[in-house]
Amino acid sequence: MIRVGVLGATGYAGSELVRLLSQHGGVCLCMLTSKSYEGQKMSDIYPAMRGVCDLVLEAPEPETVAEKCDLVFTALPHGASKEIIPRLYALGLKIIDLSGDYRYNDQAVYEQWYQQPHSSPELLAESVYGLPELHREEIKKTRLIGNPGCYTTCSILGLAPLLSAKVIEEKNIIIDAKSGVSGAGRGLGLDYHFCECTENMKAYKVATHRHTSEIEQELSLVAKSPITLSFTPHLVPMKRGIFATMYANLIELKKKEELIALYQDFYKDEPFVRVYQEGLPESNHVSGSNFVDIGLCVDERLSRVIVVSAIDNLVKGAAGQAVQNMNLLLGLPETQGISAAGFYL
Amino acid sequence: MIRVGVLGATGYAGSELVRLLSQHGGVCLCMLTSKSYEGQKMSDIYPAMRGVCDLVLEAPEPETVAEKCDLVFTALPHGASKEIIPRLYALGLKIIDLSGDYRYNDQAVYEQWYQQPHSSPELLAESVYGLPELHREEIKKTRLIGNPGCYTTCSILGLAPLLSAKVIEEKNIIIDAKSGVSGAGRGLGLDYHFCECTENMKAYKVATHRHTSEIEQELSLVAKSPITLSFTPHLVPMKRGIFATMYANLIELKKKEELIALYQDFYKDEPFVRVYQEGLPESNHVSGSNFVDIGLCVDERLSRVIVVSAIDNLVKGAAGQAVQNMNLLLGLPETQGISAAGFYL
Amino acid sequence: MIRVGVLGATGYAGSELVRLLSQHGGVCLCMLTSKSYEGQKMSDIYPAMRGVCDLVLEAPEPETVAEKCDLVFTALPHGASKEIIPRLYALGLKIIDLSGDYRYNDQAVYEQWYQQPHSSPELLAESVYGLPELHREEIKKTRLIGNPGCYTTCSILGLAPLLSAKVIEEKNIIIDAKSGVSGAGRGLGLDYHFCECTENMKAYKVATHRHTSEIEQELSLVAKSPITLSFTPHLVPMKRGIFATMYANLIELKKKEELIALYQDFYKDEPFVRVYQEGLPESNHVSGSNFVDIGLCVDERLSRVIVVSAIDNLVKGAAGQAVQNMNLLLGLPETQGISAAGFYL
Amino acid sequence: MIRVGVLGATGYAGSELVRLLSQHGGVCLCMLTSKSYEGQKMSDIYPAMRGVCDLVLEAPEPETVAEKCDLVFTALPHGASKEIIPRLYALGLKIIDLSGDYRYNDQAVYEQWYQQPHSSPELLAESVYGLPELHREEIKKTRLIGNPGCYTTCSILGLAPLLSAKVIEEKNIIIDAKSGVSGAGRGLGLDYHFCECTENMKAYKVATHRHTSEIEQELSLVAKSPITLSFTPHLVPMKRGIFATMYANLIELKKKEELIALYQDFYKDEPFVRVYQEGLPESNHVSGSNFVDIGLCVDERLSRVIVVSAIDNLVKGAAGQAVQNMNLLLGLPETQGISAAGFYL
Repeated sequence: MIRVGVLGATGYAGSELVRLLSQHGGVCLCMLTSKSYEGQKMSDIYPAMRGVCDLVLEAPEPETVAEKCDLVFTALPHGASKEIIPRLYALGLKIIDLSGDYRYNDQAVYEQWYQQPHSSPELLAESVYGLPELHREEIKKTRLIGNPGCYTTCSILGLAPLLSAKVIEEKNIIIDAKSGVSGAGRGLGLDYHFCECTENMKAYKVATHRHTSEIEQELSLVAKSPITLSFTPHLVPMKRGIFATMYANLIELKKKEELIALYQDFYKDEPFVRVYQEGLPESNHVSGSNFVDIGLCVDERLSRVIVVSAIDNLVKGAAGQAVQNMNLLLGLPETQGISAAGFYL
Repeated sequence: MIRVGVLGATGYAGSELVRLLSQHGGVCLCMLTSKSYEGQKMSDIYPAMRGVCDLVLEAPEPETVAEKCDLVFTALPHGASKEIIPRLYALGLKIIDLSGDYRYNDQAVYEQWYQQPHSSPELLAESVYGLPELHREEIKKTRLIGNPGCYTTCSILGLAPLLSAKVIEEKNIIIDAKSGVSGAGRGLGLDYHFCECTENMKAYKVATHRHTSEIEQELSLVAKSPITLSFTPHLVPMKRGIFATMYANLIELKKKEELIALYQDFYKDEPFVRVYQEGLPESNHVSGSNFVDIGLCVDERLSRVIVVSAIDNLVKGAAGQAVQNMNLLLGLPETQGISAAGFYL
Repeated sequence: MIRVGVLGATGYAGSELVRLLSQHGGVCLCMLTSKSYEGQKMSDIYPAMRGVCDLVLEAPEPETVAEKCDLVFTALPHGASKEIIPRLYALGLKIIDLSGDYRYNDQAVYEQWYQQPHSSPELLAESVYGLPELHREEIKKTRLIGNPGCYTTCSILGLAPLLSAKVIEEKNIIIDAKSGVSGAGRGLGLDYHFCECTENMKAYKVATHRHTSEIEQELSLVAKSPITLSFTPHLVPMKRGIFATMYANLIELKKKEELIALYQDFYKDEPFVRVYQEGLPESNHVSGSNFVDIGLCVDERLSRVIVVSAIDNLVKGAAGQAVQNMNLLLGLPETQGISAAGFYL
Repeated sequence: MIRVGVLGATGYAGSELVRLLSQHGGVCLCMLTSKSYEGQKMSDIYPAMRGVCDLVLEAPEPETVAEKCDLVFTALPHGASKEIIPRLYALGLKIIDLSGDYRYNDQAVYEQWYQQPHSSPELLAESVYGLPELHREEIKKTRLIGNPGCYTTCSILGLAPLLSAKVIEEKNIIIDAKSGVSGAGRGLGLDYHFCECTENMKAYKVATHRHTSEIEQELSLVAKSPITLSFTPHLVPMKRGIFATMYANLIELKKKEELIALYQDFYKDEPFVRVYQEGLPESNHVSGSNFVDIGLCVDERLSRVIVVSAIDNLVKGAAGQAVQNMNLLLGLPETQGISAAGFYL
């Protein structure tokens, strides 16, 4: 059985990977690493995992990793990721990286939005953007996947059918996105203190969030035309979930039914995209699951379409999508280990 | 001392009026009505008010109301409001109505969005839209105020300076608004069940919410030109708060500082509008207070301005604004009883 | 493959059964019933289940149920349960009932606490109290299981080792229990309105909650002596979870380590009980899982032991335990379909 | 007008003092100090206070404090408090200290529970325990008040009438207390990260919490007999609130009505204690207010009384009580500035 490891297992994305992989059935989870908690058991840090995953957390030594694993997920803090991935790649490992580093086709775009030089630009040519709905065939063939972020997955999949079909204006696209707090990770900060978060909401990084560039890259590919758009992230007082409300002007007025048919057709073979014929997604329809739920309305007064999409930021927006990519890359059934309905409650 | 009453005192807006009026100091709160709880004490229904307001809830009999009160707030369920207000008006009372019925200048607009005939169109000519920042002088002279809704107050005040100064395109204005759950009132519904609400968010009434027409009416007056726009309400898991993110295209690119100066000038004499020179409002900056907090960003890449505004839906979005209107109408200091900072925690 | 059905599938316990059974692998979920939603799909009511469980909800007709199923879970409202279970039993079905009706050994105790006559007392002799940790062998042999309630499972398992070992006084046992809101079910009520629930907590049914009698019945069996105790339920603002803090006087002062050893021994073969050597359980250590987590402290000043136990009310406190009982009754591996770690986040 | 200052104004207790004092009307809030934020405005740290309190935060220099203030509230981190208070006292200031340092009659008890020597034991003879319901006359005459903690206020007032009347056994008293998260202050910690806190509850410092000693000190005085008891604090996912469930054995069985009469008599002149004739307090009945709400049940089966009491930890449990003490000490009306109903919503 394929041996997999999780580097950076004690962050939120890492722990979600452990949750999913410990029930996967098709791979052997055999190595977890953590700098902060080396030597302790995963279940000491996350008591919820006692008896389910009691692996001891190890130092992320590339040689040891390469010895123990065939494939690794890297869910490391920015910076740590940068150093280790080229070495792991050189050692022949398959890598699914959850950072932003290998999501770009164009080094310059990365450097503009991240405000720093890319540390291993030569790998950008090898790496594949791990969004199966758009890049399934390339994913199957690569050894290095840049696993998309949560905001981007939700936004790209929400708008792709409209841009692909050329039914909306390319100007005046607006993505108003809302995220649960786990998207900010497990690190401490006053913004994530319970008393400052609960019963509160806010916008942040308005017009400057890095994910904008990822969304534009992928939607430009879909549209076969350079797309720029507004992306505004918000923090809302819930643990999980990304909810995106997207606005675009219809080139010609269409009925809601026509547009829904267009979405259903675009996603007809996708196991994780659910298009709503009626009603709209809510964030807890996808909590804990790998689904992307999409619905839409047409404002006939304004000839504008409003699309709503929802994902779980830790699953389809991180760990679940990473497992989906792993399944594709290893030739396992695409839905293995990630087919559950999640937890509405 | 002026005697005031609250009709429909046990709903959320009603109880918030009682909270504020019991500490006001300038008026005598002397009558509360409730159909459902007639005969019980306000503090039986809201034990938080024991020892602070123990008035007995009475039936809303117009004659009795007119005998006991000089001014009434009507926070009645739609329908109940319709019947009683014309009678109270005829009896000479001053009325601040929290329903949508007297917020319109044009009966046809009301009837189109409410999908029903207006029951007392003759009063529309008398009534004043109770947004002090735009209609202060008329408010002082009227006897019937249509107190604005929560979404509308937050949206109108967020966009008025831009439209007044003619710096944004009138097309492509988008308001993405988020509300706490108390906006839906105290009535029961599966959507407001704790387990369905918490850890969840959703959009609703997309492109069809009635408040759209109120916003368009008032912004058209400000712009001196008919404005249509997208308004999308969302429910987020918190009790209080309206948070609006608004998008508009700048006719000519402006610096953030110029636009902020424009807001500061527009609101320079307003006691309840706080313009942020730096940073952006968060919903708990205004929780429990009558303030409207406004901030903005300019996306220079797209020549677009993103405005963020926040109010407490029960205070500036309902009861607090009603008290502000009462203060104006009675010639009391405008900030009396509503000058506190609210409760950040 | 064994065919199973869920009667009352759209309540919270029912929907949790569907969540677990749709991933079980060892049985075929082939019938769901609902009086309120007959004719609709399960996934219309719970969109989270689209593509995972799209079964159409049927009327709970005993004959049809008996035709389609070998085993049924009854998660019906009180009253509905009463009528249908004797008929299903007569038709030869295996039944796991989630109501309180078949949890009692003594009809009189039931009638005293439920304040009504038992409708099928003859079945009480057949039925088994479905707590595997105490009644595993009987569960394997019966056709009718009274599946324990959430408070009771958490309380009984928390105190059983101490009473079995006769190390605590039988007087002065106090259980202070706290529950998430889903324990109250999906029905509407002002107490469960988001705005009344969030940021609030309360005690209810103090000294009168029916579960007291279940706890006393089972602990008396363990202690081989009649036990009476204080049980106080509280509602706390979270969706899931039962957290019990239990107090008892030690007959002779013991060290914490001795008592923990006693618990470890008592539960040494139990797949779902996790005893904490250090630290104490928190409610989200068990969210979404079938585990019971138990820890304790000794107050040497007072010669008193304080035991803390936590379960997920919908899993080990309802649906998960029901699946565990099904596994035992059908001869499947006891942990099948319920071995996951749950969702800490 | 009396000039007051708040030392440590940017913590949660400090900011709550600013909220209350800025609306008090009878004193002049003229100095705020903060080590971390010196030089910034209070309203930069708490934007909710913009336009309400824009005082600049100063360094806590004793000489300057003594020059600018007649009375100070010290809401300093442990340690900081220790050094500055003796100096302020020597400079003639009136001091209301929110730390634990001046709450003890017996230095040895302090040193046992705090595990450190007391830094100014000579002041213990001067200081008064600032619980007006038990020590009103002494409070009026002192210059140094040890303002009680939140758990202790709620617990002591909940049990005092029973011990004073000698109707309960002195053994087997159990206090199971639940706190909102703001009780832990504004400091960062994984335990207070939103994602770790929400949808979670836990017990902590079981059998070792320092407040136990405060409760025992005061209840021993009331009982005129040394009282020891169990005190268990819990963290629940809400911002504000202390909710205590207390258990005691009745020496002779009493009816609920008799015990309620006893409470009503004990607290008959207290402006902030509300005894429930029917029903029980909930934590949001007192949110934002200075009230203590108390209710009780008698379990006749067990001859045990269960008392429930609730306060707002930041108001009656900290800042509100401090203002009440200030009012007493300055000869102002006891309820000035703290008579509002709080915010149920």
